[in-house]
Amino acid sequence: MKRAEKILKRINELSEITEEPGVITRTYGTPAFVEGRLLIVQWMEEAGLQTSIDHIGNVRGKIISEDSDEKTFVIGSHIDTVVDAGKFDGPLGVIMGIDLAEHIISSKLKLPFDLEIVAFCDEEGVRFQTTFLGSKALAGSFETVILNETDKDDVTLRQAIQGIGGDPQKINAKSIDAKNWLGYFEIHIEQGPVLYEKNIPVGLVTAIAGQCRVEIVLEGFAGHAGTVPMQMRKDALACAAEFILAVEEFAEEHKDKLVATVGKLDVPHSASNVIPGKAICTLDVRSADENFLESALQSIKKVTIDICSKRKIDLQWNNILQTKPVPCDQQLNHLLQQSITAAGYDAIELVSGAGHDAIAISDVSPVSMMFVRCFKGISHNPLENVETKDIAAAIAVADNFLNLFISNYNKSKWKYQH
Amino acid sequence: MKRAEKILKRINELSEITEEPGVITRTYGTPAFVEGRLLIVQWMEEAGLQTSIDHIGNVRGKIISEDSDEKTFVIGSHIDTVVDAGKFDGPLGVIMGIDLAEHIISSKLKLPFDLEIVAFCDEEGVRFQTTFLGSKALAGSFETVILNETDKDDVTLRQAIQGIGGDPQKINAKSIDAKNWLGYFEIHIEQGPVLYEKNIPVGLVTAIAGQCRVEIVLEGFAGHAGTVPMQMRKDALACAAEFILAVEEFAEEHKDKLVATVGKLDVPHSASNVIPGKAICTLDVRSADENFLESALQSIKKVTIDICSKRKIDLQWNNILQTKPVPCDQQLNHLLQQSITAAGYDAIELVSGAGHDAIAISDVSPVSMMFVRCFKGISHNPLENVETKDIAAAIAVADNFLNLFISNYNKSKWKYQH
Repeated sequence: MKRAEKILKRINELSEITEEPGVITRTYGTPAFVEGRLLIVQWMEEAGLQTSIDHIGNVRGKIISEDSDEKTFVIGSHIDTVVDAGKFDGPLGVIMGIDLAEHIISSKLKLPFDLEIVAFCDEEGVRFQTTFLGSKALAGSFETVILNETDKDDVTLRQAIQGIGGDPQKINAKSIDAKNWLGYFEIHIEQGPVLYEKNIPVGLVTAIAGQCRVEIVLEGFAGHAGTVPMQMRKDALACAAEFILAVEEFAEEHKDKLVATVGKLDVPHSASNVIPGKAICTLDVRSADENFLESALQSIKKVTIDICSKRKIDLQWNNILQTKPVPCDQQLNHLLQQSITAAGYDAIELVSGAGHDAIAISDVSPVSMMFVRCFKGISHNPLENVETKDIAAAIAVADNFLNLFISNYNKSKWKYQH
Repeated sequence: MKRAEKILKRINELSEITEEPGVITRTYGTPAFVEGRLLIVQWMEEAGLQTSIDHIGNVRGKIISEDSDEKTFVIGSHIDTVVDAGKFDGPLGVIMGIDLAEHIISSKLKLPFDLEIVAFCDEEGVRFQTTFLGSKALAGSFETVILNETDKDDVTLRQAIQGIGGDPQKINAKSIDAKNWLGYFEIHIEQGPVLYEKNIPVGLVTAIAGQCRVEIVLEGFAGHAGTVPMQMRKDALACAAEFILAVEEFAEEHKDKLVATVGKLDVPHSASNVIPGKAICTLDVRSADENFLESALQSIKKVTIDICSKRKIDLQWNNILQTKPVPCDQQLNHLLQQSITAAGYDAIELVSGAGHDAIAISDVSPVSMMFVRCFKGISHNPLENVETKDIAAAIAVADNFLNLFISNYNKSKWKYQH
């Protein structure tokens, strides 16, 4: 448990560095972010890693192999947080990565490739309403057009980068060349309740779900709640209710393949004695299967059109967002599955419904992810918690995983799919 | 059509008197209200009525019969409005009442009882969040405890009464004694679409519905829309949706006996990517049948408890308001039905889902109401409209009704139920 306890101690220490005392908030480019970053640099150096900070602000710590030919395997996660965050979302993966590297160095294990531990600077995107600034820079896909985005105080991203010592014109310059990526591994809390409910400390992520977000506007006709007979109503809220249950029913029928949520519902100018004339709601659908996601959305849309037509309600269906699913690499998954089994756990397969840096990295590298159980699935919340014994379990699996990867690599058994 | 055209002209003239140019707003006790009241006094005097203003501010115009023994029949409606109102809600009944009285006087018809036309000062209750100030004063049931209610500028009702020349201590002093009420008749726009849809100018009101209002708080558990599998969710909004459809289904099954509406629905702290943890909604149920209203509410509550139990959602059921139905007088209804038939129309029976001054008057008198068709059922809205030919139809029916009442009264055929 010694390594796990040290990791937990560091997670607690990093969580003390915050923009606002009493809560954990450490968004990109702020003094708290810079202070937290220095701590990561210090821990990486203590581990024996060669550290650098790139232009976007990622902290990078390297074990350079004599035999590497610049081929690199990356372990990463992020150190920025949401507002009033938990301690584990991001830092767990970074600090475990440092521990794994330290273990390799102290074991005098000879690596046949470079290993890089990365603390990504911005995954949550809170300050500039962007995502994956750090991992996009590492993958070389940072787009300079977003340098003009501003935060709530009208500071541009360009100014924020300069403020922490980066050169906005050179963001992609320190990326890892696509040809040199061997693979990417990320350890992250699940942020969902499956491992907690199944009582298993870790899980294998087979894919990061693609996501569709739609705004649905239902327009009926407002009327007096006392004077309009039931059969003469065009009640937009009752229509929304039927839509919500249809979404739920569809998602439950296909619960192994997707989740769907109506998260927001507004009834403008509502009153208890007025039949709702208008309802506006959101639909969020996620699936690891791109074709199924597309066909599910069409099925839900068709049902919605039928409901509205039956109720004589006008429908606006506004597509807001659509992202593709990112499958994790099958060969890495296979190694991870063996590593979990070897550590004595069932290898539960999970789809990540939340986004992760692995999405940006998947442009240039095979990616893999391991989830660690978190208390009741609670995340983005001060109640976020991971038990020491689960960190220990994750260490055991990750050690297995790296050993297996090295062994396979040495036997030239490795093929990359990208 | 001459009388109908004159009535419409007066309705238009009164609608020009408003607190805010461009819209119709004439709430209790304001300068616009006082100006409008003076116009009513003038029209009553032109009709030959003996006018007075009582302490609450009702305008009253009387035909005093030599044979009356103070027995009085009242025709009334209100001259206050909601904010951004239509022209007809209230004024139609007042101005038609003046016309009916003028017609009796000009016809030299001898009345065996006193006839009083009343322009009630406050039915909508907009300024002090009260209702029926005027009709309660006429019925002698005004409660002095509400004199301390304040408007948005902290003016008390007491001050408002004094401001328009009334004595707050004498509000009930000018009421009509319970023993002297012969009956009450109110003409009002339907404020609903039934007559419009059935293409009939007038309708007979059999009762004013009783109303229950409930606040329903549903508490589930918020979660990440991407990471919580469907079967592990406690989605408060999906629960609310099932509740809304259950309410609608119940009301449609019993559509001849009630209406039910979920008018408000709030999801606190909602976001498109968060499973709703809480939903708060309102339930409004109205029926003319007191026992059925009570049992309907219990049935809906039971279904709601079952839905919440199945979904593991915590339920709070807060009763906010409960009013009893007011049946219109059967003998007056019978006369009104004959009057409608004699004028050549089908006597459609309607339940009023909206409140009216007749509710307050029903404490002391048999009451009756006639609804007049309004455009698409639209009310409390500048689009509120009544066609001249429908006013003419209402005049024909009301003339018949008064003649029948007088004739029955003369034959001592009249019995009062109160």
